[in-house]
Amino acid sequence: MSKSQKSLIALLAVLLLFFGFVVIRIGVAKPATTVKAAKIPAGEYDPAAWGQYYPLQYASYKKMAEESPSPTGYGGSVKVQKSEMQPEILMLFKGMPFSRDYSEDRGHVYALEDLRESKRIGPASKGACITCKTPYVEQAYKEMGWDYANKPLSEMMDKSKQPVACANCHDPATMNLRVINPAFIEAQARRGIDVTKASREDMRSYVCAQCHAEYYFAPGTNKVVFPWDKGLKPAEMYAYYSEKPNGFVQDWQHPDSKANMLKAQHPDYELFSTGTHGKAGVSCADCHMPYMRKDGQKYTSHWVTSPLKTLDASCSPCHNQGSAWLADRVKTIQDETFELQHMAGQNIVRAHAAIKAAAARPDVDESNLAQARELVRKAQWYWDLIAAENSMGFHNPSQALNTLGQANELAHQAIEIANRAAGVKLF
Amino acid sequence: MSKSQKSLIALLAVLLLFFGFVVIRIGVAKPATTVKAAKIPAGEYDPAAWGQYYPLQYASYKKMAEESPSPTGYGGSVKVQKSEMQPEILMLFKGMPFSRDYSEDRGHVYALEDLRESKRIGPASKGACITCKTPYVEQAYKEMGWDYANKPLSEMMDKSKQPVACANCHDPATMNLRVINPAFIEAQARRGIDVTKASREDMRSYVCAQCHAEYYFAPGTNKVVFPWDKGLKPAEMYAYYSEKPNGFVQDWQHPDSKANMLKAQHPDYELFSTGTHGKAGVSCADCHMPYMRKDGQKYTSHWVTSPLKTLDASCSPCHNQGSAWLADRVKTIQDETFELQHMAGQNIVRAHAAIKAAAARPDVDESNLAQARELVRKAQWYWDLIAAENSMGFHNPSQALNTLGQANELAHQAIEIANRAAGVKLF
Repeated sequence: MSKSQKSLIALLAVLLLFFGFVVIRIGVAKPATTVKAAKIPAGEYDPAAWGQYYPLQYASYKKMAEESPSPTGYGGSVKVQKSEMQPEILMLFKGMPFSRDYSEDRGHVYALEDLRESKRIGPASKGACITCKTPYVEQAYKEMGWDYANKPLSEMMDKSKQPVACANCHDPATMNLRVINPAFIEAQARRGIDVTKASREDMRSYVCAQCHAEYYFAPGTNKVVFPWDKGLKPAEMYAYYSEKPNGFVQDWQHPDSKANMLKAQHPDYELFSTGTHGKAGVSCADCHMPYMRKDGQKYTSHWVTSPLKTLDASCSPCHNQGSAWLADRVKTIQDETFELQHMAGQNIVRAHAAIKAAAARPDVDESNLAQARELVRKAQWYWDLIAAENSMGFHNPSQALNTLGQANELAHQAIEIANRAAGVKLF
Repeated sequence: MSKSQKSLIALLAVLLLFFGFVVIRIGVAKPATTVKAAKIPAGEYDPAAWGQYYPLQYASYKKMAEESPSPTGYGGSVKVQKSEMQPEILMLFKGMPFSRDYSEDRGHVYALEDLRESKRIGPASKGACITCKTPYVEQAYKEMGWDYANKPLSEMMDKSKQPVACANCHDPATMNLRVINPAFIEAQARRGIDVTKASREDMRSYVCAQCHAEYYFAPGTNKVVFPWDKGLKPAEMYAYYSEKPNGFVQDWQHPDSKANMLKAQHPDYELFSTGTHGKAGVSCADCHMPYMRKDGQKYTSHWVTSPLKTLDASCSPCHNQGSAWLADRVKTIQDETFELQHMAGQNIVRAHAAIKAAAARPDVDESNLAQARELVRKAQWYWDLIAAENSMGFHNPSQALNTLGQANELAHQAIEIANRAAGVKLF
């Protein structure tokens, strides 16, 4: 073979290798991960024990100790009272613990500490409160069934040694994703969903959904129940509550309006799963626990936090507009949501006051008064669904804004009917 | 060279060609189109004359004669009165032509016919109305400047032989995109944008934006003006109107409330360009005039219509979830938007009535009354921005819902202050 022939073969081979490599790189965007199962005993709840085998995941988990504000000004992991930004909160939750203490949440690693220090708990608080604060709930439910929920909280807290950690979401034997909150498992079963048969992609949301959801405590038993039997949209959950499930009527009675109120609890999954990202099959973990690389090794970030803090890793796999552009879109949606939330919240405060004033009239029309109370109950719960939710509307912008628009309308209707109840002749 | 050496070279060359081809196919998703410029004389406005050279574009243009409802139930190209779905329209536009006739728009090919048959025009109507109905506006402005806008409409209609057609958006000599509406060119210039220097991608929106925008007629001259000097968002345009630009105060006075009202006009571009699609650099044409193929030839569809009717071609190049999924997302957003729009519209009707009733009281507080009138003016214009817009919120869901939420709040404030003006003591 001549020298030039050899050179030609070499050149062709190099080019072939190059193009072949390009094709392979383009074709295989997501290499499969192989998770080695370590020998972690069942009932090991200490994340440090798991962390020995999964150092990258554990290192990122520990980043949840970081306390930092959100780049858009909403949420964040710093413990500040929400009433600083929305003073109406103090009046809306008058007569119940959230008026005493309602701060932004810090990371999962503070779950027990923040519960312990919360001014919302007291000697009467029940074990149900540990359900989403510790992996120990697995053992508690195994040993006692729902009885753990009705024990004194202090007793259950003593047994809860670890905050939300590895075991809340992983089977220690297989490292497979799992859910351990019995309230979630039961709620899904009532919807016809067997969570043990869920796909991995669904599990990447279910592990979060088991706690980031709306719930109530059943009267008497303090069993935790998700109001999902009729569906996950605001109107469907409200219809569920209207039927007094398990004898549940209210979380508390507002001392001014005497309306039987509901406290909404962070319905992140409900809002998200019925919105564009959720419907498109995106999972919670896709954005909140993006894939990272260190020294060539790919791993799932366990720094569960706002995707605004990991924009490139969280959003850019699907959206290629750059992090400044992406942050601006989130900020715009959050500003638009907060504007309606703040507006509705203030009008609901006025509704409580109007009902109180009307009720003080000796000649008050009781039927109108009852209607006004029902309206303010609904208004505040619709408002609270979005106010208590952790994305300031981003999880489902159109549903969030629609829900707040309705909350505000219901508040005005409550004010108007309260005035009618008091005999005011309105134009 | 041996036979085996030759075979090796041949094999490597074939593989190289194959991979090279794959890379090129992946890299070049959108092959450039070459548009042949035909010899079309300046001032040729008949689309049939252009169609001889561009048969595929012309055939699709003619599809605009089709009258069909929208798959989601909002919009569509069938001439039905909007008041059938929203009876509140009849009261909101009381005392002005839109209460007589306010139908869904048919396609561009009917622009002149529908103007001629509209019950909104009469002997006093002015030439300004042809601005967005015919390419003849180019010649009119060339010959008369803005004077054409103040001529009798009938005179200008006689000269307008063709409805919106090729020449509205294309230079006949080069086939380049162009804009001919002087109101748009001037508005952009005031914002510092020279439309003659716009990129092709921007022009793919500007050709639509030149008419699908909010405007008013300057008093005295009937010159068409876009209220964009302070920005394109609702609050920015309202701030512009509040300064009485060109002496413009109102489109009409509502006969009940005596409020000085503004009629909003299809601000499609304003809503779209400040939303996610617009900010991402998507152009109007990308969705409303998708690329099509016939017999291997690629062309831009000139059937300018709802992308819901061309979902696969319009949305699938970016969104791969399938047309049923996509249509469902649009329907959800539109339902959520319509709910707030209908709610706000009805409350604005009540505000007009409350102000009328308050004004009839001999002891009315004039300062409160004036405030109530300002509030209902703003409420209705915010409502109308979204109601007159052609996407039922889809062009910018979060802004649309926020704007409607504010409109509803303003309506309630107007009702309340009207009651106060009448001396009603509210709780």
